[in-house]
Amino acid sequence: MADINSPVEIGVTTGPIRGSRKVYVGARTGSGVRVAMREIDLEGDEPSVRVYDTSGPYTDPDANIDINAGLPGLRSDWIHARGDVEQYDAREVKPEDNGQLGPDRSGGVAQFPNVVKRPLRAKAGMNVTQMHYARKGIITPEMEYVAERENLGRELAKDHVRDGESWGAEIPDVITPEFVRSEVARGRAIIPNNINHPETEPMAIGRNFLVKINANIGNSAVASDVATEVDKMVWATRWGADTIMDLSTGRNIHDTREWIIRNSAVPVGTVPIYQALEKVGGVAEDLTWDIFRDTLIEQAEQGVDYFTIHAGVRLPFVPMAAKRVTGIVSRGGSIMAKWCLAHHKESFLYEHFDEISEICAAYDIAYSLGDGLRPGSIADANDEAQFAELYTLGELTKRAWAQNVQVMIEGPGHVPMHKIKENMEKQLEACGEAPFYTLGPLVTDIAPGYDHITSGIGAAQIGWYGTAMLCYVTPKEHLGLPDRDDVKVGVVTYKLAAHAADLAKGHPAAKVRDDALSKARFEFRWRDQFNLSLDPETAEDYHDQTLPAEGAKTAHFCSMCGPKFCSMKISQEVREFAAKQNSDSYLANEDLKGENSPQERAQNEAGMEEMSRVYEEKGKKLYLPEE
Amino acid sequence: MADINSPVEIGVTTGPIRGSRKVYVGARTGSGVRVAMREIDLEGDEPSVRVYDTSGPYTDPDANIDINAGLPGLRSDWIHARGDVEQYDAREVKPEDNGQLGPDRSGGVAQFPNVVKRPLRAKAGMNVTQMHYARKGIITPEMEYVAERENLGRELAKDHVRDGESWGAEIPDVITPEFVRSEVARGRAIIPNNINHPETEPMAIGRNFLVKINANIGNSAVASDVATEVDKMVWATRWGADTIMDLSTGRNIHDTREWIIRNSAVPVGTVPIYQALEKVGGVAEDLTWDIFRDTLIEQAEQGVDYFTIHAGVRLPFVPMAAKRVTGIVSRGGSIMAKWCLAHHKESFLYEHFDEISEICAAYDIAYSLGDGLRPGSIADANDEAQFAELYTLGELTKRAWAQNVQVMIEGPGHVPMHKIKENMEKQLEACGEAPFYTLGPLVTDIAPGYDHITSGIGAAQIGWYGTAMLCYVTPKEHLGLPDRDDVKVGVVTYKLAAHAADLAKGHPAAKVRDDALSKARFEFRWRDQFNLSLDPETAEDYHDQTLPAEGAKTAHFCSMCGPKFCSMKISQEVREFAAKQNSDSYLANEDLKGENSPQERAQNEAGMEEMSRVYEEKGKKLYLPEE
Repeated sequence: MADINSPVEIGVTTGPIRGSRKVYVGARTGSGVRVAMREIDLEGDEPSVRVYDTSGPYTDPDANIDINAGLPGLRSDWIHARGDVEQYDAREVKPEDNGQLGPDRSGGVAQFPNVVKRPLRAKAGMNVTQMHYARKGIITPEMEYVAERENLGRELAKDHVRDGESWGAEIPDVITPEFVRSEVARGRAIIPNNINHPETEPMAIGRNFLVKINANIGNSAVASDVATEVDKMVWATRWGADTIMDLSTGRNIHDTREWIIRNSAVPVGTVPIYQALEKVGGVAEDLTWDIFRDTLIEQAEQGVDYFTIHAGVRLPFVPMAAKRVTGIVSRGGSIMAKWCLAHHKESFLYEHFDEISEICAAYDIAYSLGDGLRPGSIADANDEAQFAELYTLGELTKRAWAQNVQVMIEGPGHVPMHKIKENMEKQLEACGEAPFYTLGPLVTDIAPGYDHITSGIGAAQIGWYGTAMLCYVTPKEHLGLPDRDDVKVGVVTYKLAAHAADLAKGHPAAKVRDDALSKARFEFRWRDQFNLSLDPETAEDYHDQTLPAEGAKTAHFCSMCGPKFCSMKISQEVREFAAKQNSDSYLANEDLKGENSPQERAQNEAGMEEMSRVYEEKGKKLYLPEE
Repeated sequence: MADINSPVEIGVTTGPIRGSRKVYVGARTGSGVRVAMREIDLEGDEPSVRVYDTSGPYTDPDANIDINAGLPGLRSDWIHARGDVEQYDAREVKPEDNGQLGPDRSGGVAQFPNVVKRPLRAKAGMNVTQMHYARKGIITPEMEYVAERENLGRELAKDHVRDGESWGAEIPDVITPEFVRSEVARGRAIIPNNINHPETEPMAIGRNFLVKINANIGNSAVASDVATEVDKMVWATRWGADTIMDLSTGRNIHDTREWIIRNSAVPVGTVPIYQALEKVGGVAEDLTWDIFRDTLIEQAEQGVDYFTIHAGVRLPFVPMAAKRVTGIVSRGGSIMAKWCLAHHKESFLYEHFDEISEICAAYDIAYSLGDGLRPGSIADANDEAQFAELYTLGELTKRAWAQNVQVMIEGPGHVPMHKIKENMEKQLEACGEAPFYTLGPLVTDIAPGYDHITSGIGAAQIGWYGTAMLCYVTPKEHLGLPDRDDVKVGVVTYKLAAHAADLAKGHPAAKVRDDALSKARFEFRWRDQFNLSLDPETAEDYHDQTLPAEGAKTAHFCSMCGPKFCSMKISQEVREFAAKQNSDSYLANEDLKGENSPQERAQNEAGMEEMSRVYEEKGKKLYLPEE
């Protein structure tokens, strides 16, 4: 067992993503809010492309990164300036917070050196949620930050004719702070940011904003350690994770979470029941409201931004799942089902829901109402148990909103394509447009090892239909714990699925990056093509496997066709030839449409011969110099 | 340069796919037709699962595989028995067939030792296409083979309640040989099988059959060699490729193709213009109808099963592509565009289309009418050029059908999700339900290195809407030539996309494999889960990376949750507990729905306490022995 008091050596990846640099953009309101973005510079006169950036200070070469100190509190001043919070002595960390009541399963984890001993909470009678402010008509700096961040590129794209099918979403041409406020006020978007996690760069989850993605990380009882998990967190956000869930089980949950939160610039979600269960030695029926409540406070003080709460797994729904092919596959859902059956009582999460909301309101923790009865196979999709729970989540949403607590709703899971849309429609109806947050869904069960793809297919679709955040799935889903490479593949897969959804919804600026990359491809600007891609390193690596020579990166062909066959090259020649030779004459050539008089035909034939002669004369070259 | 007369050492992967065995199923008609399938045996009393098998004799341990001899001619007797073919002296192979007029770019390729010197063609005045037979009311052994092959599993699933959204497809409960005949007769399905490629196991491409996938292989002018390509062909069909396209360019095209066809149990398609262009030293404007025609005969005699012909790239359409972000990205399309512009004449493919059809009718080669103007970026999707060509392909389809030539239609490419459906709808309308065969489409351009996924998303959707065959895309798309691993990833990705489409269309038996795998997952039959997956090796490998111990494969938990948290395990316990304790009592517990009288509530509470007492009494165990 490691000495748990020695300083921890945690290596994370820092420095800019290749071909791009960090920029900070001042909010147009002039309030001084500065929003982190990433700018990709292109060759020649091509304008730079600005992209949404989740990577935090880690990609800023000027930032001083010290994992043992944590990130600076970007939002601290904003939180204090509102005058509605107070500091107090933190709940004391107990041995069982780190699972020390359970059987010894792994080495210990050092305590984070910089633990906050006096966390914040709302003053008595106060409510510190973004929803509370929004409903009072207050535009917070968090909302300003979100507006600027989401606006990204829309000015560049202002002449772009919007198309797309938004299925009822109302995406504006420009996102204003007021728009963010109104979306948060009506519950259609959330900004998860616990007042004890001031390190976050504010972000919104809602169907009228960019589709977001979440990456799950965390220890399990049988594998993993804290250094690996912090590294995965930084790595996942580097490639585009908008939020992180720490799903640790086993030992060291408390300390692992502290390291993650203090170093995370994105919101962190958890499933508190996992830790509560560890505290009772893993025996579901020994869980109590008091233990659970204490766990919520513990995590609230650390700064968890959203809680998955499986309060919709009610006792009467449990037998509905007994008929299924795969029963209950949600861990939280099955724990609660077991508790309900063992005690033959209604779920304590359901019974104490309003008390949970009180805690959420005091720290601004958002609900992620868990779908404990989500289908674990396509056979179980859209069944009675699933929808009974969904309508309960809708009922709970209204109760949470009554306390101004922000809410999103978790969704499946495993759903064949033709049943995906119904999930979105029912969720909108049941939950009053609270943001939907789905895991995939996987559209078939037959491809373990490729479930990032089976689920990416479903994720792109449900994102198009209106899901606000997509929980990633890695290639290891159903098989093992994801390693660093799996995390990256999962994040990039979900990033492309979310982007495909934005495009299909008709997001006004989403196409900018596609068009810039396509143009670079057409013009054989290989480096620009790599740099504009979601994963420049992999793109370049794949290119170099076939044509490693440096010259190939400026070559006007690639390895698929070679210099002679390249269609892009021929196509450029066609374009230039057509431009030079006055392409209108071709269009006027009605003979080709088969309707001409013999006279016209003769004229046209003469014209064609002339064009052909000119071509011969100019040495059969399609690239002609400017005259 | 290698001695091109020495015997070639070509290693290919043989032997059963793990956990399964080859079976040959006699057609129910009693005709003696035996259909190759793969059967996956499961643990305990679980019934075996029979799956569609594209792998040919290579996975049959009893087959004698000799790459230098080629595969046996499964269909030879059927072809000869019809009495409508004659043998004749093959066209002599010319040096330029192997590109020897071009600059020397790579080593030579040995000639296949077993070249057929006297190929078959239709006797004068005869037509040997499956469409011709079908329209005469003849059910061929090829159609019988297809019916049995497609029927697969439907009997097992006969009690399955069908659901799905088929978008107008008419998938029957059982596929009869007569159904196959009628689909081929009306042009809604094709069975590509050149009479000079008797080695194929017949398969159908059509929207009322299982969705098929194609894998592209082939030399390029800058890389690759024949041994690698034959190995890739066997490898791609092992993992599920229903057809192969040999897209070789550069030298040795003729000999490479001979090796591939003689060893391929699946239909082989080509783009003849690639080879024709090599014969004129790569100068598109030097192409002539005579050279092209001679190339068609050359390939027809070798046994190519379908030809991509870009006859829809007409001169008046070419300038339409000049406005695009990415112009013309189809190689064949850009060659023809260049030819049309250089000569200022209508495409010779369009002008000589009926003569091409005559050749196709004499060998039973199917058309794959090429979409030379497909979009190469989402910016260009569904534009004027693309649809002008599509409607021309529809016109050509009718001309081909007039000669009883089988036809499928190639489709895009790069299309954002909201524009995919229009492609399918227009294709059905323009082309009279001829099978659609699309490349992806990719739903975003920003993920080079992951375009198997960006395109897999589009492929699953368009397959659902009615596309009959999906042309795979590998991770190397746009970047380099796929290696063996890329081919496998591409094939498995497309296999899962095609299967997801079958599920969503409501195919009556598609769900059998999903349900078997889900049940295995729920019951912790790890080996069954691996074996039922599309890629058992990867699934097991991923599992073993976290829990390599042999015992973990029978363990009732996995590495994600560990023994205590496993939701599957808890869920099984819940199910057994519910079954034991008479789950009806919970449902009857109306108190939980909040509507009960105080008296009822008291009764219920007493009931709950009793249930709880029983649970305690039985040692808090959820697994109870049978009483």
